[in-house]
Amino acid sequence: MFAFDITAQDGQARAGRVTTAHGGVNTPAFMPVGTGGAVKALTTDHLEELGAQIVLANTYHLTLRPGVERLRELGGLHSLMDWKRPLLTDSGGYQVFSLAARRKIESDGVVFASHLDGSPQRFTPAGVLDIQRAIGSDLMMPLDICPSYDDPAEDIDRATELTHRWAAEAFDNWRSRPESDHGYDQTLFGIVQGGYTEEGRQQSARYISSLGFPGWAIGGLVTAESRDETWRLVEATTAELPEMGPRYLMGVGTPADLVRAVARGVDMFDCVLPTRNARNGTVFTSKGPMQIKAARYAADERPIDPDCACPVCRRHSRAYVRHLLATGEITGLILTTQHSVHFYLNLMAQIRDAIRANDYHSWAARFLAQYEAGLPESHERKEVTA
Amino acid sequence: MFAFDITAQDGQARAGRVTTAHGGVNTPAFMPVGTGGAVKALTTDHLEELGAQIVLANTYHLTLRPGVERLRELGGLHSLMDWKRPLLTDSGGYQVFSLAARRKIESDGVVFASHLDGSPQRFTPAGVLDIQRAIGSDLMMPLDICPSYDDPAEDIDRATELTHRWAAEAFDNWRSRPESDHGYDQTLFGIVQGGYTEEGRQQSARYISSLGFPGWAIGGLVTAESRDETWRLVEATTAELPEMGPRYLMGVGTPADLVRAVARGVDMFDCVLPTRNARNGTVFTSKGPMQIKAARYAADERPIDPDCACPVCRRHSRAYVRHLLATGEITGLILTTQHSVHFYLNLMAQIRDAIRANDYHSWAARFLAQYEAGLPESHERKEVTA
Repeated sequence: MFAFDITAQDGQARAGRVTTAHGGVNTPAFMPVGTGGAVKALTTDHLEELGAQIVLANTYHLTLRPGVERLRELGGLHSLMDWKRPLLTDSGGYQVFSLAARRKIESDGVVFASHLDGSPQRFTPAGVLDIQRAIGSDLMMPLDICPSYDDPAEDIDRATELTHRWAAEAFDNWRSRPESDHGYDQTLFGIVQGGYTEEGRQQSARYISSLGFPGWAIGGLVTAESRDETWRLVEATTAELPEMGPRYLMGVGTPADLVRAVARGVDMFDCVLPTRNARNGTVFTSKGPMQIKAARYAADERPIDPDCACPVCRRHSRAYVRHLLATGEITGLILTTQHSVHFYLNLMAQIRDAIRANDYHSWAARFLAQYEAGLPESHERKEVTA
Repeated sequence: MFAFDITAQDGQARAGRVTTAHGGVNTPAFMPVGTGGAVKALTTDHLEELGAQIVLANTYHLTLRPGVERLRELGGLHSLMDWKRPLLTDSGGYQVFSLAARRKIESDGVVFASHLDGSPQRFTPAGVLDIQRAIGSDLMMPLDICPSYDDPAEDIDRATELTHRWAAEAFDNWRSRPESDHGYDQTLFGIVQGGYTEEGRQQSARYISSLGFPGWAIGGLVTAESRDETWRLVEATTAELPEMGPRYLMGVGTPADLVRAVARGVDMFDCVLPTRNARNGTVFTSKGPMQIKAARYAADERPIDPDCACPVCRRHSRAYVRHLLATGEITGLILTTQHSVHFYLNLMAQIRDAIRANDYHSWAARFLAQYEAGLPESHERKEVTA
């Protein structure tokens, strides 16, 4: 059932299509983050209207609520959300490290306490696949470990070694049972880790690709390293991956990050930036991020982005959106989220068009010049952490 | 421009149509409450999709934010919300009494401190009309005073006397300048008060109707009095009002209240119940209110109301809505609000159909029997205050 077709290539940038049991996704693709079964402040109706082709959900959150048994009983997450298009789930490992209390890595998995009630939990390579079979995601991820940028080299090596061992175990487990609990094929990607050296990344990419996964994720990047390092490490990774599978840069990033990563052969992305920043009052535009809560927009009758065709910019002014955010209206969060998710999805459509037109390099240069002219000084970090 | 046509009558119940500069509203009508320029958790797109024909907004909130000058500059609230259908605004008096700090009634108006920043404010009969001219509502309300149920008789008499004097002043002010700041005709209703005796209500209704308003609001009811008293007071009021004008029972109420008030000749309603309760996890159904957050719905794959045709019931399960509320997702508040606003609007459509079919009495009996069978013991008060 799973397929990946490259329909156009321009330098390292590729345009193509991932096919799953729930239909296709044009790549390069951005996946809005629907953590616990909803993209925050959007309904399933909204996601369809915005043209989202795939949504990412978090195994960690879904494991805690509504829980694995409940998901199995309710027909999985597609059924729960009434979302008929593809879903991707992460392995939960990243959230264990960022959210859970008292986490401990053991050789056969991770033990941790729920951030909600402190209840003891355990993720293993086989266990997180069983959870993802209950969720019924089309694209699954194996349990991995993201070391920190400043971890000692031996800790990073140990993390990579465990990630590799768990990847092999997950691969065999998946091949022995490729169907979800709801009766359709699922696909498992491999995750490349390898720390923050080009050698580490190359070795991990070679090992993970040797296992035979149909697609690859690149984990652990865009954390504390500089963006220059990020791109060197991405290049070192994609150079070692076979052409014929989608490459997914996990948790990344800003619009500029997406444009630069595509130039280095990345096909898929997810990030909370458009949705989280929307709820904090920052929306994305082709001329850079805009603090729409700012008082200077209080009488501004223009749409958020005059060039945008989203449902918000077609009818509402900056003044209205700003008024709603200033007065704490939920309605404001819906509007900013709709706009920014549209911005990201439309950015990917522009990227695909530019690749198909064999014009990616100059299109990207124009986009970045205009977008980054709108960034305040040292904005990069603020944008990521806002 | 304003018109009111009665197209069917069944006992005291009337079906008709109010016409304003922004189009018509079929009556009996329910107005969703869009306090500060948005119905909470809904967008203007949602309101149109749900078929809302009119929205109520609060003069008090809009005066504080975005402010009168800003509203005037931005073309009024229709323009700010991009809402092309009718708007009604209250006078702000009720909110002054329920929200503001340090309020004081004087013979020519009310002085109070903003609940947001304590800033001193003043509402006068002429001033609240000027504010509503800047807002540009199609239906305006004059400044009035809602006495408390347990106020001494002389305080209630004084409140009625001031309400009457201010109504006459407002009527003359409106006739001398019937256009909004944005160039179209506005209509001013009179507000009947008169305390909690039938005599007081009758006197107030006679005085207010003598002034020549094209429509009447009934204020100050469904507070601390019993529902039996409410209906006696409503009957005493509508009996004194001319037939040919819409009657608007302010701030009321539960579905059962609406059905009973229509039987007593009321044509228009507004209430925060569908929207506020939706955000607290209670949705309305034809079988009574439903605590959709309750754990018993966690695996319930039926829609909130299997007989409902709203956008939520057409695609989502109780289990999904319950999961979203249990996990604190904004998306859940959108869904419950959509459902309950649809329920109220659809209830009014059923009411209009029953009146046109000359079947209101038996339709209402069947509706109330089914709806009230679903009420927990002593639910009435809980439902109002939830």
